[in-house]
Amino acid sequence: MPSPDLEFWFDLASNYSYLSVMRIEAAAQHADVSVQWRPFLIGPVFEALGWEGPPFVVQKEKGAYVWRDMLRQCRKYGIPWQQPTVFPRRAVLPTRIAVLGADEPWMPAWCRAIMTRNYGEDREVDTPDAVIEVLEQLGLPAQRIVEDALAEPNRQRLRDATREARERGIFGAPTFFVDNEMFWGNDRLEDALEAACARAPR
Amino acid sequence: MPSPDLEFWFDLASNYSYLSVMRIEAAAQHADVSVQWRPFLIGPVFEALGWEGPPFVVQKEKGAYVWRDMLRQCRKYGIPWQQPTVFPRRAVLPTRIAVLGADEPWMPAWCRAIMTRNYGEDREVDTPDAVIEVLEQLGLPAQRIVEDALAEPNRQRLRDATREARERGIFGAPTFFVDNEMFWGNDRLEDALEAACARAPR
Repeated sequence: MPSPDLEFWFDLASNYSYLSVMRIEAAAQHADVSVQWRPFLIGPVFEALGWEGPPFVVQKEKGAYVWRDMLRQCRKYGIPWQQPTVFPRRAVLPTRIAVLGADEPWMPAWCRAIMTRNYGEDREVDTPDAVIEVLEQLGLPAQRIVEDALAEPNRQRLRDATREARERGIFGAPTFFVDNEMFWGNDRLEDALEAACARAPR
Repeated sequence: MPSPDLEFWFDLASNYSYLSVMRIEAAAQHADVSVQWRPFLIGPVFEALGWEGPPFVVQKEKGAYVWRDMLRQCRKYGIPWQQPTVFPRRAVLPTRIAVLGADEPWMPAWCRAIMTRNYGEDREVDTPDAVIEVLEQLGLPAQRIVEDALAEPNRQRLRDATREARERGIFGAPTFFVDNEMFWGNDRLEDALEAACARAPR
């Protein structure tokens, strides 16, 4: 299997990750770039950096603006938007399922469905009922996936991914890598895709 | 005089303001949007918000990334770039001159020249020698401008602008306003121009 042109590191609870989760598949296809989806938890990264939480929460003035920005960005990209009444909304179980599905064809659709439930419908995503409902909507064997996601080997996979994020120097989500070149934020998706194209003559 | 379609708030010491200072005139002309340039000092705003300085300085992990991002952004936009050895580099006297020239046709060129000296050539900008040299290159009466810039009424103008920035809810630079709709960051220049176009049918 050829190595992916672009690594896409995202957190299912992160609002700007939502924009990229919804956009990246079409954008990458258009640019003929292959993408490796890398779910992880940004929370432990903020903690390791000594930050008290998402910058938007710690810096309240910025926080108020971010919701306005999200509304406009979602309009611009044609993405569903409803300001969540809980932020950040826990999404650990959905993230474990994304990690379990790393190499499965349903993984991107899973991430879009979970994030749309949070940011498009303002609904909880971190309960067994919620994830089973979404998995079944996708026609997937829900019970077995939840069991496997909660098993220790898969929990360890998520811890490993989050540790790798820290080692790679990630400090926010989403983050894209083209080889070791880091691009931070949904606003840099196009630049990252362009770098991936420039890197890989085919 | 018709009211401007877009207010452009910037700090002559701010690296992301540099990108917008260099880009906005051509972009606004292309979009047929009129721009009011609003120089101010972001430092006192950070202080009032209880932040210890620019986010890139306070959060070191982000800081290292920012220089890489600036290099790539400048390449993308075709803007001169040399990573400054001093950051943030004081630019209070140049800012006073920009405030003095608020309604003068030379003001945008002044801002571009000062910021290029800092971010394109890594040279000091906050000394009388530096500003006189740049003013003379622009064919302007340097001595008189420096004197007027340093006089109390003009110092007060800058204090007023900075206070107004805080009252408007600004927390970073550059920031654009279309009426009271705020757009933060060079990455939002295009969105702000589009909003200005949508607002002002002519």
